[in-house]
Amino acid sequence: MSPSRIIDLLRHAQPETSAQAQGWVRTKREAKGIAFLELNDGSSLQNLQVVISQDLPEYEQVIKAIATGAAVKVAGKLVASPGKGQRIELSAESVEVFGTADPETYPLQKKRHSFEFLRTIAHLRPRTNTFGAVFRVRNACAYAIHQFFQERGFIWAHTPIITASDCEGAGEMFAVTGLNLDKLAQSSKPVDYSQDFFGKPTFLTVSGQLEAEIMAMAFSNVYTFGPTFRAENSNTSRHLAEFWMIEPEMAFCDLEGNADLAEDFLKYIFNFVLEKCPEDMTFFQERINDQVMANARKIIDQKFERITYTEAIRLLENSNKNFEFPVKWGLDLQSEHERYLAEEFFQKPTIVMDYPIGIKSFYMRVNDSDSQQTVRAMDILAPGIGEIIGGSQREERLDVLESRIKAMGLNPEDYWWYLDLRRYGSVPHAGFGLGFERLVQFITGMGNIRDVIPFPRSPLNADF
Amino acid sequence: MSPSRIIDLLRHAQPETSAQAQGWVRTKREAKGIAFLELNDGSSLQNLQVVISQDLPEYEQVIKAIATGAAVKVAGKLVASPGKGQRIELSAESVEVFGTADPETYPLQKKRHSFEFLRTIAHLRPRTNTFGAVFRVRNACAYAIHQFFQERGFIWAHTPIITASDCEGAGEMFAVTGLNLDKLAQSSKPVDYSQDFFGKPTFLTVSGQLEAEIMAMAFSNVYTFGPTFRAENSNTSRHLAEFWMIEPEMAFCDLEGNADLAEDFLKYIFNFVLEKCPEDMTFFQERINDQVMANARKIIDQKFERITYTEAIRLLENSNKNFEFPVKWGLDLQSEHERYLAEEFFQKPTIVMDYPIGIKSFYMRVNDSDSQQTVRAMDILAPGIGEIIGGSQREERLDVLESRIKAMGLNPEDYWWYLDLRRYGSVPHAGFGLGFERLVQFITGMGNIRDVIPFPRSPLNADF
Repeated sequence: MSPSRIIDLLRHAQPETSAQAQGWVRTKREAKGIAFLELNDGSSLQNLQVVISQDLPEYEQVIKAIATGAAVKVAGKLVASPGKGQRIELSAESVEVFGTADPETYPLQKKRHSFEFLRTIAHLRPRTNTFGAVFRVRNACAYAIHQFFQERGFIWAHTPIITASDCEGAGEMFAVTGLNLDKLAQSSKPVDYSQDFFGKPTFLTVSGQLEAEIMAMAFSNVYTFGPTFRAENSNTSRHLAEFWMIEPEMAFCDLEGNADLAEDFLKYIFNFVLEKCPEDMTFFQERINDQVMANARKIIDQKFERITYTEAIRLLENSNKNFEFPVKWGLDLQSEHERYLAEEFFQKPTIVMDYPIGIKSFYMRVNDSDSQQTVRAMDILAPGIGEIIGGSQREERLDVLESRIKAMGLNPEDYWWYLDLRRYGSVPHAGFGLGFERLVQFITGMGNIRDVIPFPRSPLNADF
Repeated sequence: MSPSRIIDLLRHAQPETSAQAQGWVRTKREAKGIAFLELNDGSSLQNLQVVISQDLPEYEQVIKAIATGAAVKVAGKLVASPGKGQRIELSAESVEVFGTADPETYPLQKKRHSFEFLRTIAHLRPRTNTFGAVFRVRNACAYAIHQFFQERGFIWAHTPIITASDCEGAGEMFAVTGLNLDKLAQSSKPVDYSQDFFGKPTFLTVSGQLEAEIMAMAFSNVYTFGPTFRAENSNTSRHLAEFWMIEPEMAFCDLEGNADLAEDFLKYIFNFVLEKCPEDMTFFQERINDQVMANARKIIDQKFERITYTEAIRLLENSNKNFEFPVKWGLDLQSEHERYLAEEFFQKPTIVMDYPIGIKSFYMRVNDSDSQQTVRAMDILAPGIGEIIGGSQREERLDVLESRIKAMGLNPEDYWWYLDLRRYGSVPHAGFGLGFERLVQFITGMGNIRDVIPFPRSPLNADF
């Protein structure tokens, strides 16, 4: 017999059958010649209760060796549990201790630890209830994303991480180099990039969108799911220097089709997580943020509202609210405005479309209907988090795109291949981007984005 | 009615039904007042034949606008095809041209192009038969990998891309910096890393293994699937500077369990790809490499051979072969040795285990049984490609690991968190690594690794 995952024992195993389990001891408690262990193997939030009787020959030795954090393997018989909150428990017939944990030094004792402290021991925090739940939900989200796109025939496109162009202009970039920085600093000469690995300056990508468009022009429907980077010195609970992003791109698709897909996508992920991780979600609702279930139900149950930016401005002007930032056609919506729309006015997820041309990127399709005042951009605002998805229909007309690039002060030659996509077999196409950690934050209700990625990178922090 | 994917029409649609399709024209041919288009939307290798009669009002205009590479949408009726090699064709009732492609300048004309040339137009090569097939198979492999692990309860662990440590010592690393290289080069001072984004030197990861071990010590079974980097100046058909890697890590697992998982894993992926991409695989067999199906069948049908390194040396010594590189206990196996074992001697996938301690990494578990001469490493050798997977059981004993780190001239303080995993709740554990592009190369038979990743990075090349 081989050991079972604890989640399988808790969910499916029958009393009066033999079983083996292995994992890490969360707590140990002794009473009247019996010891109780709470055993966790990471497969579920709930522990398996192990009962060790002093009749066991190795009782004294084992109990002495075991403390919180120890790794053990237990073989025995499952019995119906008289205790509250558990269907079965494991009555030990043999216990093997793999690795101990000295209670004097092991940092994860039973008391509650602050998330700030736990960040300093990111190599141990996955063993806590909260981070166990976070990373299980993160995993469920990630798999849901692949499954959603694969079921619909999308191709996962691996866009490059190292890039020679800052084509999207989405933010400050990290430099990547094969040169020795210490030698370089002593050189007192301009950098000779011909000596660098790639023969020119290279950076970490800020977005895979432009390359995803290449792939969509061959496979129709594609998506990226990979790491992206920002060298912005933003030391906030909402920013990471390294984060994962999902960017679907669809040929033969307009902004309405884009919004349809994004809405289906969010509903699918939330449904998937609620189905796969019910205990973890209950934990977040009860211990982290009592709005997570209500927010999730709004995503799943409500048809998303769709309004134009121009309508949004009118609603905000008529709200009689004292906003900190000005509301004026042509200015970007601030977080407070987005929250008013989604949380107070519509009280459901809201898709704002057709933003002023002056505040959006060069590649977004220009609307002809309003004298080219707006572009076919969309943002999805969700109650509880604000903007969760941003996307657009792309400008597929070669002449319009070229003049937009020039108008932004960019050099069309840098975009030769991007323009080629409009020169040869151009089609209407659209896509959106979703920051993966923002999504996990939204679903779990975790307050700090550094607590939803295993090893966060932020200013002055690249530990582990 | 909304347009269908061409693969769905080809596989399932019935004649005498209405249908819409959209895609890019591969070829156009006119004969006796009828035009035939081969239409491809990237969903399959096979094109949909579109028949346009000159009775169509827009015939002249449309036929003039359409050439190879143009993007069109066709509505009409499906009819049983009299032509060879296709069950149905689409008789057009309306044709809409989205984007044209000037035959004078569009680089992808009907003739055969060299892979070298196609690398220079990586933004268009996905539209060819070969690269369409490659990236569909790549996608199928990638999804198969997720599905394999998720079905078994493994957690996808996102290990960091930017790292402050070269812990594994696996190769030369790219530096990552927020500093301005041009300013730095003019500074004539040692680098002041306190002014850099992370406050210390940082690099692009060469492996997520050590962080995956962290996650396995909480979730039991995890895997990574992400980009890794090597700044090695290797301009070969087998090396990339940026590639994707898969690294499962299992707690409570020894080398035999590791080998079992790796064998199941490879069989699963090959089965998945043969099932999902039969036309693409036939294409590779017929056009690229006539061994790909035989190699795939060996993976799927044969029980992998398992031998020790010591046995492998004995077999090589007794082979009476004239190897270029010496065969001697204590020296690493070279490609020619690996191929002899898997292709000539066993003629099936072969797992070599228990390598000499002197040629393997510090973290591999030392075998006690042979006076610590070997470590619990394994390599899987496959006919047709050679080494495809490398893995090991990890050293879980704190004292042994510490002395191995010191013996390698490394500083245990740099490994404080890795050592903590052995200090607190240590368990036997094991894992392996698989280079994703090597796998895709193996499955497709493509000769150059730059042709199995959409945008390859190699010395002096970071285009697109």
